[in-house]
Amino acid sequence: MTVARPRMIFNAFNMFTVSHHDQGMWAWPGSRQREYNSVDYWVDVARLLERGHFDTLFFADVLAPYDTFGDSSERAISSGMQFPVNDPGTLIPALAHATDDLGFVLTQNILQEPPYAFARKMSSLDHLTRGRIAWNIVTTFLPGAGRNLGFAGLPDHAERYARADDFVDVVYKLWEASWEDDAVIADAATGRYNDPAKIHRIDHTGPYYDVVGPHLCEPSPQRTPFLVQAGVSARGRDFAGRNAEALFINALSPQEAAPVVADVRAAAARHGRDPASVVLFGILGFVVGSTEAEAKRLQEEITDFQSIDAHLAKQSVFLGYDFGQLDPNEPIGEIAKRPEGKEGVVGQLIAMSPNDRFTIGELVRWYGNLRVVGTPEQIADHIEAWQDAGVGGMNVQYVVSPGTFEDFVDHVAPELERRGIMQDRYRPGTLREKIFPGNGPYLPEAHPARGHRRAAFGVTV
Amino acid sequence: MTVARPRMIFNAFNMFTVSHHDQGMWAWPGSRQREYNSVDYWVDVARLLERGHFDTLFFADVLAPYDTFGDSSERAISSGMQFPVNDPGTLIPALAHATDDLGFVLTQNILQEPPYAFARKMSSLDHLTRGRIAWNIVTTFLPGAGRNLGFAGLPDHAERYARADDFVDVVYKLWEASWEDDAVIADAATGRYNDPAKIHRIDHTGPYYDVVGPHLCEPSPQRTPFLVQAGVSARGRDFAGRNAEALFINALSPQEAAPVVADVRAAAARHGRDPASVVLFGILGFVVGSTEAEAKRLQEEITDFQSIDAHLAKQSVFLGYDFGQLDPNEPIGEIAKRPEGKEGVVGQLIAMSPNDRFTIGELVRWYGNLRVVGTPEQIADHIEAWQDAGVGGMNVQYVVSPGTFEDFVDHVAPELERRGIMQDRYRPGTLREKIFPGNGPYLPEAHPARGHRRAAFGVTV
Repeated sequence: MTVARPRMIFNAFNMFTVSHHDQGMWAWPGSRQREYNSVDYWVDVARLLERGHFDTLFFADVLAPYDTFGDSSERAISSGMQFPVNDPGTLIPALAHATDDLGFVLTQNILQEPPYAFARKMSSLDHLTRGRIAWNIVTTFLPGAGRNLGFAGLPDHAERYARADDFVDVVYKLWEASWEDDAVIADAATGRYNDPAKIHRIDHTGPYYDVVGPHLCEPSPQRTPFLVQAGVSARGRDFAGRNAEALFINALSPQEAAPVVADVRAAAARHGRDPASVVLFGILGFVVGSTEAEAKRLQEEITDFQSIDAHLAKQSVFLGYDFGQLDPNEPIGEIAKRPEGKEGVVGQLIAMSPNDRFTIGELVRWYGNLRVVGTPEQIADHIEAWQDAGVGGMNVQYVVSPGTFEDFVDHVAPELERRGIMQDRYRPGTLREKIFPGNGPYLPEAHPARGHRRAAFGVTV
Repeated sequence: MTVARPRMIFNAFNMFTVSHHDQGMWAWPGSRQREYNSVDYWVDVARLLERGHFDTLFFADVLAPYDTFGDSSERAISSGMQFPVNDPGTLIPALAHATDDLGFVLTQNILQEPPYAFARKMSSLDHLTRGRIAWNIVTTFLPGAGRNLGFAGLPDHAERYARADDFVDVVYKLWEASWEDDAVIADAATGRYNDPAKIHRIDHTGPYYDVVGPHLCEPSPQRTPFLVQAGVSARGRDFAGRNAEALFINALSPQEAAPVVADVRAAAARHGRDPASVVLFGILGFVVGSTEAEAKRLQEEITDFQSIDAHLAKQSVFLGYDFGQLDPNEPIGEIAKRPEGKEGVVGQLIAMSPNDRFTIGELVRWYGNLRVVGTPEQIADHIEAWQDAGVGGMNVQYVVSPGTFEDFVDHVAPELERRGIMQDRYRPGTLREKIFPGNGPYLPEAHPARGHRRAAFGVTV
């Protein structure tokens, strides 16, 4: 008998849009992504995930159409690639009301809303979800978002992180250092609801934000929402080391993940935190079948169904190379003879190619369809390899929604539960307590947000 | 047999807080206001209102504690007077999902969030509520809100309205002039979801906001949410004449309301709109009993239950006079001998007093408890008087929630329905179509938002 493995955290990766990562799959038979404007659709997704004991449902977000391919947004818009995209903050409470335990991750970039209003929104969500909200802290990488939000273009990378440092300090102070735990009296006899002596202004003066306070909300179940991050630049890793409780990394394999994991844990230690207090997430795209052959057939059908044009537009953004410069029908063997086919993004892609007769369009679509294809056991083995690399959670992508999540819940999750890798029931308490059981609903004392709290109250509550 | 009167619009006035207008009543037996952090509570309120055919549930909002009394927020905070206060934008979709026809009015001031992000939030809410969202456009009057939102103090009144003009033009362009009606193709055969040729940047350059666009959301059922306003300054009336489809006025009586109604209708005509395309709302506070005597007894109990201290703090804000300057226990007869008792806010209040033995504290509490007290028939007669003054809607305040709304639904609404003043079933369609039947889901062509649309597309769709 084998010893059960430690439990991992499972996140369902999604977006309040018609087409998230697998372009064109909204048209696949049985896909319900076209219903993205309907609460009913999302309630069904959330309940399905809860039936399968997923920890969280994650909403990615962007605030501009992608415009890397051909220096135009035309092709991204045409394929519905993360456009249109609605505001995920509006959706979550209805889903929380329809579920009991599933957590919800809201992505919001720090340019979108002043920190005072944002802090109130998150506290409201923490109240309404009964402590099941997480914030994915992003600084955005889209110049269009900067232009639309009142910044003359996008602030540069260093300035965005400097601004993020100031932004999180404002919201930490509002969440942790404004209301003492017993500030709400609710004494019916005297009519006093709050004790003003226990509600503090924050009087924050920073390089970007001046905020007086006090916070507008009474303490919510988690106070500070569970903190998530996805940046993996050197500066992003340091920011994660200071702030994040969960970090999504974009490594393609467990081998690539291991050094990132080590680096982020070192950054956490540098910031005085327990390195184990950050869960790192690998990414899982998969196609499952009762046999490997069946799964492979389905994977081929899915790949062929997808538009090469949309993949070129997508990878122009995510690989940072404008594929509009190339003829999509040119065989990669020809491109490999030229300088751009030997190095950089295109050279690396060509070096990865499993097939030297691919056109560059076919290669990019192949790359966008890299996923684990096999039986539930094979998929579980793959996840074990991520776990062995120090990864504590998996970010599960869908190909078709809700079909991919149904496949996971009905076929992959039972195998993972058998191995102890996935929970077979939810822990009690808030999202933070479900993910880190036994430490209570608030951030650990070593987290900088709690430091603000001690500074304000002079006590180590 | 009498001829049935025209139908009026009924709005339930509320706020995502523990204590909205009647301070201290959160502690009244049967009150559920302390459950304001729970979705379940609000779902019960929304379903109750829908059972009674209310048109809308309105969420007021503020972004700072009140601090007029004694130049301090201590007393407002102590009584829980609109503090804590959560973000109402997070609550509405869960309530929409639990109802079919009730509309929802979200108050949001134009300083809270950049217009690009706000426009997306409202379009998302319009999708999720299936066209039942309204926006109460406010410019805020609280210096604390300005300080907390990144403005050095509050911009002055004229600048706030100039900024509001720019803000609404940005969001109108995003809602009306960015996506043509047939921009979404959703063609499964080609994988094309959007037609980029029918999605337009707005390229707005204004005195306060520069926004490129395009809008992030596909056209929602109403495009522009139903537009509500509550300002009644001269500048506010002009703004309402240009923009509002519903205006809440704070007149104390039908006699006071009539000239405001005439003025706003004239402003609408000045802006080229049909004066009948703005519904004006009077305010209704009430206590109902099966006899007048029973209602009067209850009104006395309610008044006595309320804290004089909290009323002084509240009216300091709403009457614009710091009652902290006076001894609350001083009889008004004494104050009336001094200059401040003869004129201004205090002089006017003393002139209204029904009882010359009142202390100033008792008088302010009495003033805060002015409401219609009587049988359902008497309350209906009172509403008829508002209707005769040209008012088309009533803003129903609660004393105890949900008790006051239960009383209205079970006792007052049936009498109003008998008289034809209140709808006994909902009209089909969006909120706009329910309120102005027969004109379709979008704003009338004469509204300036539709003007932006014609300018962009060159057609009078």
